[in-house]
Amino acid sequence: MSTLKTEPDFILHTHRIEALVDGVFAIVMTILVLEIRVPEMPRDAGFADLTAALLALWPKFLCYVISFVTLGVYWVAHHLHAYTIKRADRMLLWINILFLMAIGLVPFSTALLGEYYLVPAAVAAYGANMIAVGLILQLHWWYATRGRRLVSPDLEEGFVRSVSHVILLGPAVYLVAMLLGWISTTLALALYLLVNLIYILPGGAHFYLKGTTKPAEP
Amino acid sequence: MSTLKTEPDFILHTHRIEALVDGVFAIVMTILVLEIRVPEMPRDAGFADLTAALLALWPKFLCYVISFVTLGVYWVAHHLHAYTIKRADRMLLWINILFLMAIGLVPFSTALLGEYYLVPAAVAAYGANMIAVGLILQLHWWYATRGRRLVSPDLEEGFVRSVSHVILLGPAVYLVAMLLGWISTTLALALYLLVNLIYILPGGAHFYLKGTTKPAEP
Amino acid sequence: MSTLKTEPDFILHTHRIEALVDGVFAIVMTILVLEIRVPEMPRDAGFADLTAALLALWPKFLCYVISFVTLGVYWVAHHLHAYTIKRADRMLLWINILFLMAIGLVPFSTALLGEYYLVPAAVAAYGANMIAVGLILQLHWWYATRGRRLVSPDLEEGFVRSVSHVILLGPAVYLVAMLLGWISTTLALALYLLVNLIYILPGGAHFYLKGTTKPAEP
Amino acid sequence: MSTLKTEPDFILHTHRIEALVDGVFAIVMTILVLEIRVPEMPRDAGFADLTAALLALWPKFLCYVISFVTLGVYWVAHHLHAYTIKRADRMLLWINILFLMAIGLVPFSTALLGEYYLVPAAVAAYGANMIAVGLILQLHWWYATRGRRLVSPDLEEGFVRSVSHVILLGPAVYLVAMLLGWISTTLALALYLLVNLIYILPGGAHFYLKGTTKPAEP
Repeated sequence: MSTLKTEPDFILHTHRIEALVDGVFAIVMTILVLEIRVPEMPRDAGFADLTAALLALWPKFLCYVISFVTLGVYWVAHHLHAYTIKRADRMLLWINILFLMAIGLVPFSTALLGEYYLVPAAVAAYGANMIAVGLILQLHWWYATRGRRLVSPDLEEGFVRSVSHVILLGPAVYLVAMLLGWISTTLALALYLLVNLIYILPGGAHFYLKGTTKPAEP
Repeated sequence: MSTLKTEPDFILHTHRIEALVDGVFAIVMTILVLEIRVPEMPRDAGFADLTAALLALWPKFLCYVISFVTLGVYWVAHHLHAYTIKRADRMLLWINILFLMAIGLVPFSTALLGEYYLVPAAVAAYGANMIAVGLILQLHWWYATRGRRLVSPDLEEGFVRSVSHVILLGPAVYLVAMLLGWISTTLALALYLLVNLIYILPGGAHFYLKGTTKPAEP
Repeated sequence: MSTLKTEPDFILHTHRIEALVDGVFAIVMTILVLEIRVPEMPRDAGFADLTAALLALWPKFLCYVISFVTLGVYWVAHHLHAYTIKRADRMLLWINILFLMAIGLVPFSTALLGEYYLVPAAVAAYGANMIAVGLILQLHWWYATRGRRLVSPDLEEGFVRSVSHVILLGPAVYLVAMLLGWISTTLALALYLLVNLIYILPGGAHFYLKGTTKPAEP
Repeated sequence: MSTLKTEPDFILHTHRIEALVDGVFAIVMTILVLEIRVPEMPRDAGFADLTAALLALWPKFLCYVISFVTLGVYWVAHHLHAYTIKRADRMLLWINILFLMAIGLVPFSTALLGEYYLVPAAVAAYGANMIAVGLILQLHWWYATRGRRLVSPDLEEGFVRSVSHVILLGPAVYLVAMLLGWISTTLALALYLLVNLIYILPGGAHFYLKGTTKPAEP
């Protein structure tokens, strides 16, 4: 293919990768709710019956909250990385698509957890999904920063390592929660919810998201 | 974590928060329709039978309209606030995600209302969803304007308070509608629809959305 | 509300209205496919059985194509108008939301048509949905151009009227198709498909979409 | 229509075409997961039962991965073309909408394949969908480059042809896979998965996507 030399210099616009990422996150977050089905009963059901049926949906609502918050954490994390990563190449693009493939499974594993929250297999499947997300995110960071491939050459090694630790904390906690699931699925669910606090609370692991300013939209 | 000092100055681009918000609103508005199921009858049903079945769907169409308009109101409100809020920080980001979590439940509460519009428990659940949306929006505004944290220091106190009152009017009306639902669910539904007029009509509560201009797209 | 005088001059960014419009169109187009259900038969069904079951889905595929193309036409039309309309105000915003509310019903009316394409009531419901879309689009154009409210003062009256005629041609054809549906639903479906050619074919009604140039993305 | 002469010079903003394309791809990728249903069994099912039920879903997970990666390949390909194509006209717009119509069918053909992966008819239907996508993409490229209609006049003929060959390789492999499906559906599925490597691997057919840079977001 002798044209290789004369081909135009194709550029992959990262803002379009980010548009795809934002789109997938928005949709995944929104279709979580499709797994919470309206209870089936007579249309003129009594107040007590419908209330009881709604309250019985609590595991699904809880899983909705857990997954929504977790997706929020990963969306923020992806943004933070995207901000540091100055360039994109083919491999980074495909790591992003792999990342979205794992994110796209979250509605399934959330529905599974909401239905079978008492069964350690479902708890483990959910954890495995989240561990996959976390590891791909770490791969994303590692690939971009390795040899300062796609980031500023001045980026400090200590910072690169700190971010890695922050990312890997997630999968580590998910692994513990999965194992705990065999003892108590309640404990595992609590951990799935609380692990996000590491990233959300100020002073927590997403420490590098500080008082930030934006200009008004142009 | 000694790297804290040397970390880059991460910036949270508000246009990406807004992209997520716009995405979630577009999807929530669009999947409302999934709750209106095509009637099940023989494929060559008679005209009268199918017409009757379609007309029997009126509560679902009504709830579709109510929720679509209400989402429109909240989308506009979020935009107006985003315009005044000049900066974003970590807390504001998470208030936004909390807001989207409540918005994401609207397809569920709409489906519930469309199915059980005769049952006060369903009417109340819908109202509770909307009150949550309104209160989080107020939290969003309060957090951003408190001590002029994320807005212009020149923003007048009277304006800040007016907007708060405008926001809180919604939850107040929803609370009244919820209570009325025990007397008449029809009355509650009417109120759920009409409350939006406060925000839509010129001279209404969204008074600050006036004759505005846009340049042609660049 | 004495703060009216001191309130900031809120601006409604049209690019965010357009983002909502683009989002809703993309989602509506994409969820059309959810109404084409995979046939239910034994997992190791014979070739002939599955092929027959797939071919029996032809009305749903046809309706998918009809609606996808029609949505394409309306998406293009909305863009063309958005290009001429230089400013937005509160009323235009709400006309847009009304427009999206009618667009959002298309997956339902498409599913209805795909299932009951032999029943004039379903054919009429589909036509009514499309007439609503067309009339709201005309309202959108009329409101913006009336007294040159939101367009350039130099816009020629002849052009404004031509565009109106182009828009109203759609609802007129849909009305004819609806009525024809009582004689032959096949004829009505054909018209639902072919009406789009008015807008797609060069020299057709969307005449004003001519050889246009774009700069490469910045 | 004498106004033709005085009409404004309508411009079709390609960034809005791209927004629609990105939106449709994000949604199609995300709703693939809706076809993987949570197994139905007692809520307190045993570990072994649920694990077995999850493992039995492997064909659906495999098809999810195949389609997700394939959509990624086509999304990248569309971007690369969009980068070379400098202008848009009405025909290109409609070729894009045709392309999205074929992409929009992917969730259906994926669900079909996931359910009937043992039946050559389902394997062929999936292949046919992908061949349609590939041929429309080739039409897109051919139309834009024919006579350098919408690309730079300096674009080398050798490059144009190379890209065509790259695009057409996909449909060719899908055709082979479809035919192989009559001998072994497993072989066909393997080919559906592996064909993507042509485009993903460095030095592969998407050769023109090389080490590319992006500026940090403005």
